Amino acid sequence: MLNLTPKGFLFAGIFIQKKKKLGLIYSKKMCSAAGVFTTNQIKAAPVIISQQKIKLGKSQAIIVNSGNANACTGNRGLNDAKKMTKLVAKELTIDEKYVLVASTGIIAQFLPIKEIEKGIKKIVPLLSEKSEDFASSIMTTDTVSKQSAIKIKIDDKCVIIKGIAKGVGMIYPKMATLLCFIITDCAISQKLINKALVEVVNKSFNLITIDGDTSTNDTIFILANGLAKNEIIIKEDDNYKKFKKALEFICLDLSKQIVKDGEGATKFIEIKIKNAESFEQAKKIGMTIANSNLVKTAIFGEDPNFGRIMMAIGNSQVKIEPKKIDLYLNTKKVIKNGIVTEINKEVLRQELKNKEILIIIDLKTGKEKVSVFTTDLSYNYVKINSAYST
Amino acid sequence: MLNLTPKGFLFAGIFIQKKKKLGLIYSKKMCSAAGVFTTNQIKAAPVIISQQKIKLGKSQAIIVNSGNANACTGNRGLNDAKKMTKLVAKELTIDEKYVLVASTGIIAQFLPIKEIEKGIKKIVPLLSEKSEDFASSIMTTDTVSKQSAIKIKIDDKCVIIKGIAKGVGMIYPKMATLLCFIITDCAISQKLINKALVEVVNKSFNLITIDGDTSTNDTIFILANGLAKNEIIIKEDDNYKKFKKALEFICLDLSKQIVKDGEGATKFIEIKIKNAESFEQAKKIGMTIANSNLVKTAIFGEDPNFGRIMMAIGNSQVKIEPKKIDLYLNTKKVIKNGIVTEINKEVLRQELKNKEILIIIDLKTGKEKVSVFTTDLSYNYVKINSAYST
Repeated sequence: MLNLTPKGFLFAGIFIQKKKKLGLIYSKKMCSAAGVFTTNQIKAAPVIISQQKIKLGKSQAIIVNSGNANACTGNRGLNDAKKMTKLVAKELTIDEKYVLVASTGIIAQFLPIKEIEKGIKKIVPLLSEKSEDFASSIMTTDTVSKQSAIKIKIDDKCVIIKGIAKGVGMIYPKMATLLCFIITDCAISQKLINKALVEVVNKSFNLITIDGDTSTNDTIFILANGLAKNEIIIKEDDNYKKFKKALEFICLDLSKQIVKDGEGATKFIEIKIKNAESFEQAKKIGMTIANSNLVKTAIFGEDPNFGRIMMAIGNSQVKIEPKKIDLYLNTKKVIKNGIVTEINKEVLRQELKNKEILIIIDLKTGKEKVSVFTTDLSYNYVKINSAYST
Repeated sequence: MLNLTPKGFLFAGIFIQKKKKLGLIYSKKMCSAAGVFTTNQIKAAPVIISQQKIKLGKSQAIIVNSGNANACTGNRGLNDAKKMTKLVAKELTIDEKYVLVASTGIIAQFLPIKEIEKGIKKIVPLLSEKSEDFASSIMTTDTVSKQSAIKIKIDDKCVIIKGIAKGVGMIYPKMATLLCFIITDCAISQKLINKALVEVVNKSFNLITIDGDTSTNDTIFILANGLAKNEIIIKEDDNYKKFKKALEFICLDLSKQIVKDGEGATKFIEIKIKNAESFEQAKKIGMTIANSNLVKTAIFGEDPNFGRIMMAIGNSQVKIEPKKIDLYLNTKKVIKNGIVTEINKEVLRQELKNKEILIIIDLKTGKEKVSVFTTDLSYNYVKINSAYST
């Protein structure tokens, strides 16, 4: 599946310094383009620049550096980000306005712009149809690269959607996420890829959290170059629905890959909220549990201290009916109508030895259901993050 | 200072099982009483019972058990809590309605009510003017007991206020806090001790966080028995102000003691927000920083990764002006007008070796200032919380 690549896209990735890399995506044909960005009020320079550029709705290249976020760097940072797009445009002989930029890494350091300049000259001749080097180039504390691809038929034409993402910490995307680059050869209007992206992100990337911290640099781009030669999708018809469903598959797959590689994670936790009054209520409860250090450390310790899950539900700042709540650890009912059941703790301890943990909360107040995904909190999380900048 | 005890109060504390204790405070004279409680929607049985009882505005005794929160225990839990107050009243030969109750410990387990019954019979004869056993009896993972006392003059009478608290984890009090018992021999109306308590708690206990999780059991009680024989305070006059200032001293002192004993804490962190538009804005920014795992792990690792503080400021969900922000680590300016300064990282690393860390954020948008207090996030936090219920 990972060998699937939409027609007309080329990739490259290189080291420019220890822990500092450069990645490039290029489409031979002009693309419809859309993007979503972090809601953090302190936005990195590349986010500010790309937010302006994406308004054009067209793009042909994305340049990314990892190891330095280019955030809290003022005008110098903005100039550095612009310089990156300008140099890439020059090397690719395209217009600067069609080059998007993203950065990830440590916040509050100036970019090593000299090394990036040299890197851009080196990277362009390396462009190829293989995406592995690009996928590696955007990794920071990621231990594996994250790619997903799917092939669908639209009008008997073969359409491919591919996504490449990074992220393991500072992951609590809100209306946007980490770094993720989605490319497709589907012919689809800019208006509709934008609509599909926003909707799909809300049901995928925006339902994951690793540590409750939202980055200054979260960015997703989608580029569609139309080379699949399907009749262009311009209405919300069956072809649009098929495309959106495939996009959702890619985004959910990448979201789960990110959680599984979460900093220090030893468990993959799905928190399923059932019979909620609304999507927002369910999401808020799920996220409050997912961001509770006490819940996360208990699961790391395989300790069936499920009272902490109830504590988190009660803190979720949305109205609940405590006396209706059922809580399950995997398939075992531990709380019934808000009251602890007489379940054997040793049985629960065995359940918690699984790598994948399912927590189900049945609110019994409505019909909505949502799953959010998170990790446990381990010694290794503390280790990774207590020495990141050194 | 800890030997100071308001006139007419007696204390006792005993073990009833391994890790399970019982504590009792008794006033020889009827007290004016007030309380504040957790805002968690899932409230422990003793919180529900005491919230009803405190409406009376009078009390003479407080019974507390530690090791079991009596939360998520339904009607059985409510009956157990009531039984505790009934048995204490019987032993003390006072009316049941004047006995308050509090619990702390693991959530979602039924109380060991048989052992508590036996304990109550044993504890009453042990009442004395010494508060040490009581202070120890309410500890769970606390490593030290937390007491504070102050003597003030009102109308040439000597008035003493004493506070005894517990709490090291699940600490992010909102409108209430952990367990804290404040007693005084001051003569003051119930209306005014209630008013003073609510106001003081907002500027002390509600400005601390250890792990961002709010307990199901948070409770503060204040009892005033009037035995200092000052003229009763019934207006917001100078005597009231003097009393309130002394109460604030006690609450802030206990708040800091709680943070210093935070689970696994190796650092005591003060986050001072200056020149904010409002108290609420400043508090929200301070708390977002204080609850960021990435900020907390960096400080544990003595890693000057202050970009994470900026990340947290940007996530605080209140309007800020990123280009005005100055940030200091202890006395060193690391961000000026939103942009990283050229400060030597080695100097910062040395600063972070201190046990007490001061983070100053100058927003330059108003005149309000607030300090919030928190801990770092260490391996030991994970250790303590990954095996709590076992």
